[in-house]
Amino acid sequence: MPILYHYPLAPTSRFIRLVLNEYKSDAELRALVPWERHEALLRINPAGELPVLDDAAQGVYCGARVISEWVEETQTAPFLMTGTAEDRAEIRRLIDWFDGKFTKEVGGPLFQERIAKRFLRGQAVSSDVIRTAIANAHIHFGYFDWLLGRHDWLAGDRLTLADLNGAAHLSMLDYFGDVDWQKYPDLKTWYMKMKSRPSFRPLLADRLVGMPPAKDYAELDF
Amino acid sequence: MPILYHYPLAPTSRFIRLVLNEYKSDAELRALVPWERHEALLRINPAGELPVLDDAAQGVYCGARVISEWVEETQTAPFLMTGTAEDRAEIRRLIDWFDGKFTKEVGGPLFQERIAKRFLRGQAVSSDVIRTAIANAHIHFGYFDWLLGRHDWLAGDRLTLADLNGAAHLSMLDYFGDVDWQKYPDLKTWYMKMKSRPSFRPLLADRLVGMPPAKDYAELDF
Repeated sequence: MPILYHYPLAPTSRFIRLVLNEYKSDAELRALVPWERHEALLRINPAGELPVLDDAAQGVYCGARVISEWVEETQTAPFLMTGTAEDRAEIRRLIDWFDGKFTKEVGGPLFQERIAKRFLRGQAVSSDVIRTAIANAHIHFGYFDWLLGRHDWLAGDRLTLADLNGAAHLSMLDYFGDVDWQKYPDLKTWYMKMKSRPSFRPLLADRLVGMPPAKDYAELDF
Repeated sequence: MPILYHYPLAPTSRFIRLVLNEYKSDAELRALVPWERHEALLRINPAGELPVLDDAAQGVYCGARVISEWVEETQTAPFLMTGTAEDRAEIRRLIDWFDGKFTKEVGGPLFQERIAKRFLRGQAVSSDVIRTAIANAHIHFGYFDWLLGRHDWLAGDRLTLADLNGAAHLSMLDYFGDVDWQKYPDLKTWYMKMKSRPSFRPLLADRLVGMPPAKDYAELDF
């Protein structure tokens, strides 16, 4: 049975859980905390980063991008990165947007302040950093809302990996109640659709010990 | 004619120049500085990041990953990401290593201190940051040297996108004389091969105004 090493609230790990769920994978989940050193993880991924998929049959795949492209290339339907080369360029552009720009300006600082610092002794949470990240988030939300006003899904008229990755990133913010959905109606409609997918259900059951989610986190109507 | 918007010393831009050169593209190069706001760039890439390939015929491709995958999917030979799905996973893993871990621990801080700060007023260069980045680099160099002791190219027995990206990242350090090649013989042999490729020649001619390269930067025997 394949094993996915992941951290429940990390967006890149959540993305791969969604991908595997869409493909009805039977991978077993093993949670690791990303700010600790894990010898067993380093043996299979010298970068020491999550997520890692150890597919006992084929090999070990390190990182969300590698895993998602590999799943697309080797699994049969549903196919979440099809279309023309131009379509795939748009899907990859949006995936990179979340993993790069969004993480740098919004998700990364929030992860550090809201999650990692709870576990790293002697580091005070900076409300300034949180405030700046949330201010930055509005520019991103506005852009996503605009894209979703033009077509039903982030990259066009079909569900793709871009939607799974985008929802994974936003779901971490949603856990903490950091998204003002009412301001972005098209983004909200899209996120309701994403949350309603069976692949999303296990993520809605995640609970961080000592840090309960915002009240609407698991609600399909919010 | 396609246009590549790039910054000459930025590794992701250099990677795409190498890719386009390998494919004998006739793209025109337009240099932009990444720390300034460019309205024309924002119109074609709302992320405002480099590199961007504006292929007049087909569309606009944003970011090194998107461009390199698109080139692979649409151009004919040489084919720098072929093989099995496992081979491609290894190529992408190494590309991500350079763009992610290496950039975070080594290339990013060096770019900021050695290049960006020259152009950003009132920010003092931190020799501590440079020292830490170079100390971190040795762990990476050791790993690359080990990989290259096992096979001729980073991802196996053929030249792939991983080699072009790796060489692009290392070439920025090499511009400043930050690589102690004598300590890593297999890495050095590989970099000599990379430097000798016709695709590499234009990069060796790059000169940053007011900041000449280290003496061996353009030498094929160093």
